[in-house]
Amino acid sequence: MISLADLQRRIHAGELSPDDAIAQSQEAILAQEKTIGAFVCRAENVRAPSAGPLRGIAVGIKDIMDTADFPTEMGSPIYRGFRSRGDAAVVMMLKQAGATIVGKTTTTAFASVDPTPTLNPHNHGHTPGGSSSGSAAAVAAGMIPLALGTQTGGSVIRPASFCGVAAIKPSYRLLPTVGVKCYSWTLDTVGLFAAGVDDVARGLSAMTGRPELMLSASVASPRIGVVTQHFAGAPEAAGAEALQTAARVAERAGATVHGVDLQEIVAQAWRAHPLIQEFEAHRALAWEYRENYDAMPPLLRSKLDESRDTTPAAYDAAIETAHRARQALEKVFDDVDVLLTLSAPGAAPKGLASTGDARYNRLWTLMGVPCVNVPAHVAEGGLPVGVQVIARYGADAQALAAARFVEQALARK
Amino acid sequence: MISLADLQRRIHAGELSPDDAIAQSQEAILAQEKTIGAFVCRAENVRAPSAGPLRGIAVGIKDIMDTADFPTEMGSPIYRGFRSRGDAAVVMMLKQAGATIVGKTTTTAFASVDPTPTLNPHNHGHTPGGSSSGSAAAVAAGMIPLALGTQTGGSVIRPASFCGVAAIKPSYRLLPTVGVKCYSWTLDTVGLFAAGVDDVARGLSAMTGRPELMLSASVASPRIGVVTQHFAGAPEAAGAEALQTAARVAERAGATVHGVDLQEIVAQAWRAHPLIQEFEAHRALAWEYRENYDAMPPLLRSKLDESRDTTPAAYDAAIETAHRARQALEKVFDDVDVLLTLSAPGAAPKGLASTGDARYNRLWTLMGVPCVNVPAHVAEGGLPVGVQVIARYGADAQALAAARFVEQALARK
Repeated sequence: MISLADLQRRIHAGELSPDDAIAQSQEAILAQEKTIGAFVCRAENVRAPSAGPLRGIAVGIKDIMDTADFPTEMGSPIYRGFRSRGDAAVVMMLKQAGATIVGKTTTTAFASVDPTPTLNPHNHGHTPGGSSSGSAAAVAAGMIPLALGTQTGGSVIRPASFCGVAAIKPSYRLLPTVGVKCYSWTLDTVGLFAAGVDDVARGLSAMTGRPELMLSASVASPRIGVVTQHFAGAPEAAGAEALQTAARVAERAGATVHGVDLQEIVAQAWRAHPLIQEFEAHRALAWEYRENYDAMPPLLRSKLDESRDTTPAAYDAAIETAHRARQALEKVFDDVDVLLTLSAPGAAPKGLASTGDARYNRLWTLMGVPCVNVPAHVAEGGLPVGVQVIARYGADAQALAAARFVEQALARK
Repeated sequence: MISLADLQRRIHAGELSPDDAIAQSQEAILAQEKTIGAFVCRAENVRAPSAGPLRGIAVGIKDIMDTADFPTEMGSPIYRGFRSRGDAAVVMMLKQAGATIVGKTTTTAFASVDPTPTLNPHNHGHTPGGSSSGSAAAVAAGMIPLALGTQTGGSVIRPASFCGVAAIKPSYRLLPTVGVKCYSWTLDTVGLFAAGVDDVARGLSAMTGRPELMLSASVASPRIGVVTQHFAGAPEAAGAEALQTAARVAERAGATVHGVDLQEIVAQAWRAHPLIQEFEAHRALAWEYRENYDAMPPLLRSKLDESRDTTPAAYDAAIETAHRARQALEKVFDDVDVLLTLSAPGAAPKGLASTGDARYNRLWTLMGVPCVNVPAHVAEGGLPVGVQVIARYGADAQALAAARFVEQALARK
């Protein structure tokens, strides 16, 4: 993989020009893309800006985000050839930081669950996960050092886990969703994929202009609460192995590690997530569903068919449950710095029929808390399995620092 | 003005066909539009759907909302001829309820402060207010029974006050902003304009599928807290007169009325509003401002020029202030059902150089609470002046019921 931090150091030292850094990514894309299929469209003859912390950084943008220079097709023929008039807010944040947008990455249609043809770079017989399939795969295949995705259920953390890359789903609204196709306004969150935790932190810090998100040279030993999310069912062996390994090496490296039980209201919020997600999707995608029913992707259409009778009263109750669960979860962080839990039930499923299961992700999306994926285990078939490090709402810097601690502990394993 | 409730009754009784109701609006538009200039573009040969509570209701849509059947030009040459691929969520909600979209209404560029050429129907020498200028003016001129606008500072309640129409800025997110051009994601709120409070309630109930928003035949006497918003400065004579009149007639009609002082943290939130608004606008409008600087409307551009150095830390502190103020304001509603306050400093300013001042509106937009404008006074030059009735977050039905109470009390005056 291409390390963003490494590129920054070499560019800063004058060992590499920003244009050469971009050219290296373009060559990697040429070599890999035919096999992996991570991009929907790509820029030719791009040049790097001369300034900005992300100069020389080639970035892929999930194709539900508006871009003035590329079509935005939402993974659906309904949007074939669609051109927005401008760039999404997060695309402009990248450009203002000096990054170069090299293309749009594949997305399941409307960032839902109908798979793309993208392959998992670690094992071509498996899905890279979704919905941010192309962004995760492009970073994992070493094509680009940074990519943007979005998460409504588990669409950043899950593909990062399946593809063995670092990723952050930041606190809700740390990154604006302006110009990003909406599925659920309560849930949709823009996230970043990169080779390692430090690379992710550098990307997020540069985009937001928040220096506090940069990692310190030495990371303090965190107090870690391990959460199994029993309400979401049992993980597969590979998922359980990843979580046990991460917890064990973190403790050995000096972290305080103990199990944490979440309150019943938090489990209720986990159950409320799908109702909120689909109720809002019925409104956010009303034009597509009502006026382009036949062209809708089949799995998404079925989800919408099944949820069309949800009442406003049931939605209001689910939103209230989420509100109370956020308050309860806030108290959990009085005793721990971060939570450590599964990023996915196990390794990437075989084949491309499914992008995997978001059951260990959706609670945290609804809670709006920052989640960082760290690759923790390699399962049969060379498939990576990650864990997620979660901090309280707004504590993105702490989530990144603790994830870095876990990542370093795993590297020394 | 055309009453939506009256149209519904006549259509239901078979006295008027939905198509004839639409045709009457189209004729009124033909007669008035040349003078008022409320529309950007209009539909010809539209027909009413045969079902839905809003069949026969002609609606105008503020031109920052996506429409598959019309261009969406945001009041700016930067978006000249722009076609979205679909309809905004609120446009689909109207269509699903049977309404007929008859055109796009004028908006200040990007719903900010640069005036449109729209005239105030009550006095052509005055502004109709902004930013939802065309929507307020089209309802006030009797062209259409219902129109959509948005409020980020005071862009629904202020033009409603200036134009003498009823309007609601609902609780934050009761109506989705999906497909509506973003200025500030913390503040942007879709609202409705109609002839009277009952008409507004019927429109909102039909759009959302929430029967509880319909008014009961008899409205209970509310406990009213009168708020002067002293932190926003003193009103003009006409504004003060409107508030005093509304409070007096409400008390005479049986309401409990007393003055309420807001907590200091709430005044701080009032001061924090512009910082939040412009910080987010810098991100929401980054493409327009950075890549189309010369084409930006001058007043908005100046606002952005002045606010470009706001730090994330200052923004975070402002968001925290707003959060604490919402909690404090919630307690105020333990003792009163609604607050009654100014909708604007006074009547619509003379000329078209300014759309007026949002200083009595912006606090309530930031608090996310439902606000209903009720015309309460007619100032010199025949210019209407409204008051706003405000309920706690989520209590849109109570805000509408109390506003109806005040409206009826004023009618008996």
